[in-house]
Amino acid sequence: MTDLSAPPFASRHIGPSESEQSRMLEAVGFESVADLVAVAVPEAIRAKDRLKLPAAIGEAEAIAELRALAGRNRVLTSMIGLGYHDTVTPAVIRRNLLENPGWYTAYTPYQPEISQGRLEALLNFQTVVSDLTGLPVSGASLLDEATAAAEAMTLARRAGKSKSSVFVVDADALPQTKTVLATRAEPLGIELVEHSLDGDLPECFGVLVQYPGASGRLRDFRAVAAAAHEAGALVVAAADLLSLTLVTPPGELGADIAIGSSQRFGVPFGYGGPHAAYMSVREGLQRQLPGRLVGVSVDADGDPAYRLALQTREQHIRREKATSNICTAQVLLAVIAGMYAVYHGPEGLRGIAHRVHRYASALAAGLRGAGVEVVHGEFFDTVLARVPGRAAEVVAAAAERGVNLWRVDDDHVSVSCDEKTGVAEVSAVWAAFGITEADVDIEVDIEGADDALPAELLRESTYLTHPVFHDHRSETAMLRYLRRLQDKDIALDRSMIPLGSCTMKLNASTEMEPITWPEFAAIHPYAPADQADGYRELIGTLEGWLAEVTGYDAVSIQPNAGSQGEFAGLLAIRAYHRANGDGERDVCLIPSSAHGTNAASAVMAGMRVVVVACDSDGNVDLADLDAKIDKHRDALAAIMVTYPSTHGVYEETITEVCAKVHEAGGQVYVDGANLNALVGLAKPGEFGADVSHLNLHKTFCIPHGGGGPGVGPVAVRGHLAAYLPGHPLHNGTPVGPVSAAPYGSAGILPISWAYIRMMGAEGLTAATEQAILSANYLARRLAPHYPVLYTGRGGLVAHECIIDLRQITKETGVTVDDVAKRLIDYGFHAPTMSFPVAGTLMIEPTESEDLGELDRFVDAMIAIRGEIAKVASGDYDKTDNPLRNAPHTAESVAADEWPHPYARSEAAYPLPSLRENKYWVPVRRIDQAYGDRNLVCSCPPLEAYED
Amino acid sequence: MTDLSAPPFASRHIGPSESEQSRMLEAVGFESVADLVAVAVPEAIRAKDRLKLPAAIGEAEAIAELRALAGRNRVLTSMIGLGYHDTVTPAVIRRNLLENPGWYTAYTPYQPEISQGRLEALLNFQTVVSDLTGLPVSGASLLDEATAAAEAMTLARRAGKSKSSVFVVDADALPQTKTVLATRAEPLGIELVEHSLDGDLPECFGVLVQYPGASGRLRDFRAVAAAAHEAGALVVAAADLLSLTLVTPPGELGADIAIGSSQRFGVPFGYGGPHAAYMSVREGLQRQLPGRLVGVSVDADGDPAYRLALQTREQHIRREKATSNICTAQVLLAVIAGMYAVYHGPEGLRGIAHRVHRYASALAAGLRGAGVEVVHGEFFDTVLARVPGRAAEVVAAAAERGVNLWRVDDDHVSVSCDEKTGVAEVSAVWAAFGITEADVDIEVDIEGADDALPAELLRESTYLTHPVFHDHRSETAMLRYLRRLQDKDIALDRSMIPLGSCTMKLNASTEMEPITWPEFAAIHPYAPADQADGYRELIGTLEGWLAEVTGYDAVSIQPNAGSQGEFAGLLAIRAYHRANGDGERDVCLIPSSAHGTNAASAVMAGMRVVVVACDSDGNVDLADLDAKIDKHRDALAAIMVTYPSTHGVYEETITEVCAKVHEAGGQVYVDGANLNALVGLAKPGEFGADVSHLNLHKTFCIPHGGGGPGVGPVAVRGHLAAYLPGHPLHNGTPVGPVSAAPYGSAGILPISWAYIRMMGAEGLTAATEQAILSANYLARRLAPHYPVLYTGRGGLVAHECIIDLRQITKETGVTVDDVAKRLIDYGFHAPTMSFPVAGTLMIEPTESEDLGELDRFVDAMIAIRGEIAKVASGDYDKTDNPLRNAPHTAESVAADEWPHPYARSEAAYPLPSLRENKYWVPVRRIDQAYGDRNLVCSCPPLEAYED
Repeated sequence: MTDLSAPPFASRHIGPSESEQSRMLEAVGFESVADLVAVAVPEAIRAKDRLKLPAAIGEAEAIAELRALAGRNRVLTSMIGLGYHDTVTPAVIRRNLLENPGWYTAYTPYQPEISQGRLEALLNFQTVVSDLTGLPVSGASLLDEATAAAEAMTLARRAGKSKSSVFVVDADALPQTKTVLATRAEPLGIELVEHSLDGDLPECFGVLVQYPGASGRLRDFRAVAAAAHEAGALVVAAADLLSLTLVTPPGELGADIAIGSSQRFGVPFGYGGPHAAYMSVREGLQRQLPGRLVGVSVDADGDPAYRLALQTREQHIRREKATSNICTAQVLLAVIAGMYAVYHGPEGLRGIAHRVHRYASALAAGLRGAGVEVVHGEFFDTVLARVPGRAAEVVAAAAERGVNLWRVDDDHVSVSCDEKTGVAEVSAVWAAFGITEADVDIEVDIEGADDALPAELLRESTYLTHPVFHDHRSETAMLRYLRRLQDKDIALDRSMIPLGSCTMKLNASTEMEPITWPEFAAIHPYAPADQADGYRELIGTLEGWLAEVTGYDAVSIQPNAGSQGEFAGLLAIRAYHRANGDGERDVCLIPSSAHGTNAASAVMAGMRVVVVACDSDGNVDLADLDAKIDKHRDALAAIMVTYPSTHGVYEETITEVCAKVHEAGGQVYVDGANLNALVGLAKPGEFGADVSHLNLHKTFCIPHGGGGPGVGPVAVRGHLAAYLPGHPLHNGTPVGPVSAAPYGSAGILPISWAYIRMMGAEGLTAATEQAILSANYLARRLAPHYPVLYTGRGGLVAHECIIDLRQITKETGVTVDDVAKRLIDYGFHAPTMSFPVAGTLMIEPTESEDLGELDRFVDAMIAIRGEIAKVASGDYDKTDNPLRNAPHTAESVAADEWPHPYARSEAAYPLPSLRENKYWVPVRRIDQAYGDRNLVCSCPPLEAYED
Repeated sequence: MTDLSAPPFASRHIGPSESEQSRMLEAVGFESVADLVAVAVPEAIRAKDRLKLPAAIGEAEAIAELRALAGRNRVLTSMIGLGYHDTVTPAVIRRNLLENPGWYTAYTPYQPEISQGRLEALLNFQTVVSDLTGLPVSGASLLDEATAAAEAMTLARRAGKSKSSVFVVDADALPQTKTVLATRAEPLGIELVEHSLDGDLPECFGVLVQYPGASGRLRDFRAVAAAAHEAGALVVAAADLLSLTLVTPPGELGADIAIGSSQRFGVPFGYGGPHAAYMSVREGLQRQLPGRLVGVSVDADGDPAYRLALQTREQHIRREKATSNICTAQVLLAVIAGMYAVYHGPEGLRGIAHRVHRYASALAAGLRGAGVEVVHGEFFDTVLARVPGRAAEVVAAAAERGVNLWRVDDDHVSVSCDEKTGVAEVSAVWAAFGITEADVDIEVDIEGADDALPAELLRESTYLTHPVFHDHRSETAMLRYLRRLQDKDIALDRSMIPLGSCTMKLNASTEMEPITWPEFAAIHPYAPADQADGYRELIGTLEGWLAEVTGYDAVSIQPNAGSQGEFAGLLAIRAYHRANGDGERDVCLIPSSAHGTNAASAVMAGMRVVVVACDSDGNVDLADLDAKIDKHRDALAAIMVTYPSTHGVYEETITEVCAKVHEAGGQVYVDGANLNALVGLAKPGEFGADVSHLNLHKTFCIPHGGGGPGVGPVAVRGHLAAYLPGHPLHNGTPVGPVSAAPYGSAGILPISWAYIRMMGAEGLTAATEQAILSANYLARRLAPHYPVLYTGRGGLVAHECIIDLRQITKETGVTVDDVAKRLIDYGFHAPTMSFPVAGTLMIEPTESEDLGELDRFVDAMIAIRGEIAKVASGDYDKTDNPLRNAPHTAESVAADEWPHPYARSEAAYPLPSLRENKYWVPVRRIDQAYGDRNLVCSCPPLEAYED
């Protein structure tokens, strides 16, 4: 007896109903989806078999299975430290930000006019970092502390004056920082030297100081900084943000760059991630910052408005001249950290830091009083105890009492206090050391313990003086601030976000719910394995499913962004060639149409980039490929291609390309950015590729979070499996880690797990088919109005289509920018602008948009085409028209004076449906050039907003 | 060693910071809050001692304690039925509606212009009920099925032609319905007769048919209805909404009224509540409907707009002429049920019902196949099995398998299937009956089982044909629909809602989080007690805390609305007098300033209402009180007073009033509506009252939910404790139940528990003090612009203040309505209008609003006063001015033509701060009279929205 079938989850995930699908097929001219796919997808790459995945289950069943997995994780109090500290996410922030689709379904704020809310939130984050580190310019977040350290290392190399290839690392740096630095240094020819920093420094281009150290030690590094500067080296401080509320900030001690984690500002452990790392720099280095930077500019009315000041994005990455492949951030997590500071304010943060420190001091005093040696006299939150031969025993005794400590070696245990530490935890730790209540000097209470902050390091400078850190202290005020910012933005909860190459599909509530359950959220990445059985099973299962979907043999989910997956994939290829004695193979072929990130990653992996031309259809030029292979045959390491191509087309020649490269001894890297066009229909691992990275935040439903987190697993065929990224806390592997945490952003993997579990093979395949149908439907409906640039067999596109505005621009002066901004007046986020071809728009509808929404978008695009026609005909002024003046704020259309030759109603309500559902953009078009000329990257004084 | 103190939760709950409080004190003219309270609150009523409550704990600690309590509830599969059925709340609805403050912090939609979102959602609910029951007019929800039955009984009595005092109840009605009917019938002189409905009916004014019956039996009641109508009686059908997707609706069988529960439409059990009951009626009875009814009207532009068609509210209740004291609804839960239907659509609902029925049929077939007698051959979801002498054994065996069944008596067990039932559950039930896999005929599978729906009852009529039930079937579409509706409304997440007597304070996220945990949400109200240990401890603790706070000796949280608490309190007084041989005491004194509900409740409790005059200060006229006491001394049952008075003043004479009534042998009922002005400072149970009801949805932070749920515990002194409401499933008490479920709306009690736990004695007292200070601050700042109507000692108000517009209206024609609607243009919900005095506005800021928000409100009121002055001076036209035309939509101020003599900017941005944060109202002022003349109470066809 089998259960009666209820409608599957896929029918909720996929937007169009069956009848809508029929109407779309009719418009595209096919009888069935199978017919369409048979023409669109080349036979040569079609998967032979149906995906081997467990049968789809419903939402309630998936939640039940996830609850069972969660139940196999054990939540202990983790006082392990090492860069990860327990923290309280204020409930008002968890519910109204982390659990709110208005925040988590937003895209990266490249369209600043519809992103003012999260841009303001990111500016808060930058201000927090800048104020606390004492360095004037902070970026909008990096992936984790270890990769931030690596970015700082390369920044120091390119910005410094020293010709040395040595980078000195504090011996007391976090272990994961050391190993990620090693992974990143080696291909770039950087020599890492670990050093106590106590004696003379070796010649170097930079030095990284951990402040406080991994061992808890807090030291004044002014002398180290002075010596480094003397020698022309730059100083990087890896600093704990919370400690900086009490101690002198790195900027005042001589650091040129500060990096670190903001995890303990309200972001749960998540078994290692995601959370936002930070980087701030001194004056003069701001234009060298990797990643994104939010700045203040002005809009068309001269009012202040936020925007990304240094746009780094896959297509902006400067290819083979790249210095970093970073093209994302951890926006959602940075926003949480910023809001944590907004909610607590400087006094609140100082209060938390003070309590943390007093508990640590009391803990140390109690240990000393009982005769246990405390190694460092000066510390913030971490106490290093020397217990010769007894470390394992103490750690085990603590675990029995529900507390995880850190066994440094046989003789040392370290204990980190955090926001959640209280008397109960301190007592449990004492007990684990064999100290009973009776042993503790009753005078050694928390208020009475010696202060372990050195007098010369007490912070004197103020921070967080901006009103935003003072005005939202009640929950009511905080709630309204979050709502107000959210309301400024367009996210998926308002309308379709048709961004080509970004796959803005549904992030289902059921997928999202588990990530805030304590059993997933509250596990320290270095918690003993037996406390994370549920996590490890979930990760193993997910890696297996992803291998099945992609046709590869092994997957690692460690890379916490697509760029990191790409880098890991190339490292695997490099290590493979070396192991085969082919160490000289270092040429990476990249088609001219590729994402810029590809080339940047290749450079980071120590490869030389050779560009392969594309033909006029946007496909790889096979003749040029042959020529390049011939020229570099002996040095050929790999080719990197995107499939379907960045032009949104299934290239017919892909198998041929793969064969040619293999024949020459190279490996084939297929960028998984467009995997949403393949799942269930074709497998890169089967049709010729050796390695791919995936974007779980595209194809597998992890939300974009307003610009992060991402997850970028790397998938390889069997011969490369041994070269997947390792981790220092696991068994050694030939290739080091690419992320700080062993499992990267483990905390959000339940999202993708749930998606695959609920879709099953049929649902996933149906989603891909619908994505293709929807893209072709849009292409077919838009084609009479805008030329569709590239198509493949049967005049079909894959899962996205590019419309070409170049001729229109030439004839009318109306640009892609004008169209993009005018779409805001129609309530839409713009498609991808000018990528991969300048002067075009790339549109990806995904399977999740229903026909009503697709038609609404088409209606808007057709109406805009009509407006363009009016510009062409002279009915609209060439410069003073609704397109050039878009977007129109409510304030502008409700102004007493209306200076434009077109009507207010044409500005605000160009389609009748807008009268029922109108998004009001909060600012007019933003002046990008002004913002770059006048770089302001922390909260501006309120006067800036005065008229 | 004690923990270092972190800022208490009270500092998040209370809006103003210490420095803000100082500035407010200065404005009011006091040195300290203690000084202010000493003058404002009469010494005679001041509590002697500090509240005896456990010390406040932080948010994380409260969550931990609640998790521990939740852990003591055991979630089994409950197939108990009896009006409560397990259901799947779609995650998109849970997260974006039930867990979204944009929905749950909204107030009742009395200001329709800022309530269009939830009014549309309620219209969906009404359409669901109306379509499914086959009766044209449905109300916007009632409290629970049992009280809905009682309302139907009284409706039948007043609307019917019969002079009989008999109401016939189906012997197969739900047990809780029978007992609540009994509680409600007795004081009204209605004689309840239980009847099988199989033979001739006795003479009666109405008959209630349960459809299907509590035993599962599904029968055609056409003949019963015909006979009843023949005799001049009305027919009430208590119908299961889900079954009506398959069977003939009550309206087509002859029912005049249908009532029932919508719980199984996506609303969790919650150990009994809250959920929305429904009532629908045939043509001709619509103006008799108790509770609220949403209707369609038009706005000033003639566009369709929603509003409450029959406003019943505490102040609208027709006092002693009342026929019902219902003055609330279960809006949040009705909205969920409506959205559940929107998301599933008619096919989806029919599919769910079909599966439920097939599993029940298969279950019955399996039982029969194994020789177990199935009592009824025709049923929808509930199978009644006869197992002579074995019922307890079967129920126990099922519980061992994780399933709760219902032991009807020693020989019968009933099993109800629901949306979550599957093969596993059916098999477990079979096993509990001793049936193994081998015993079940393999042919008897789910598809093969006999259909138990009688052919003559198969539904033929269509339902849910409106597009709203077809357009939002993907999760993406549903998410956007919810967002779009939410965005139309003003709730606490946007701005202050300064409603006098409504106490719109913070509903903290930490308080809200636990209610959707499965351990609280998924417990059936009749689950065995040992599965609800956590609930019972939480309830016992909460009742104890509420007793301490109010100074009473016993509390019952059963009443699921303030009106029900009031009724329960009066029943206790009545039963007490009867027990003392004072059965003739039936006069209830009520001051003329009282809430209308008071009188309505008194009438329902079988009392005669005698009104006591108030003096010009709004206080009880002691001379008139003496006169009325003298006149009714021997018949005096009680006095009902509100304290502080409905005028927002601490009456000095309250102790004297109590003494006078006591001296005459009467009891004192203090309405707890204004308890937010007393907590920690004074206790009704100490200063002279015998009984009160509380409003947990005001003082104790349960959100208003857009107009429900409410919780209205009744609190009594020791001599009345024996007369608190009982429940049929518990030990018998002299007074029957007032709600369907033993613990009323148990599912939301964790909110109030968490509030008290986190505030502690000091926090609660500080909140009251701040509420008083804030009201006086507003009064002081507004007084130069608007006369403040009533004040007490020192010219002070209590926790709210009334400003008097009558003279202004007389001089300028500007009405309270104009001011209320104009406040919308300033982004505010209006204060309470024309209660307790016509032509005034009553403002209650609560303690949760910070000074910035209070000042923003004051600025708006002062600016409006300036606009009024312009009307007076003639600078503004008498009729065409921003006040009379308010509110102004974006569409109107962005129109091409601007027909008004004042500027667009004056309409839209009368204060500069609005340019940063503007709420755009979706409709212009709504024509109330038009809506009452043209009653449309279900989703109008789309053409209605065409221009």
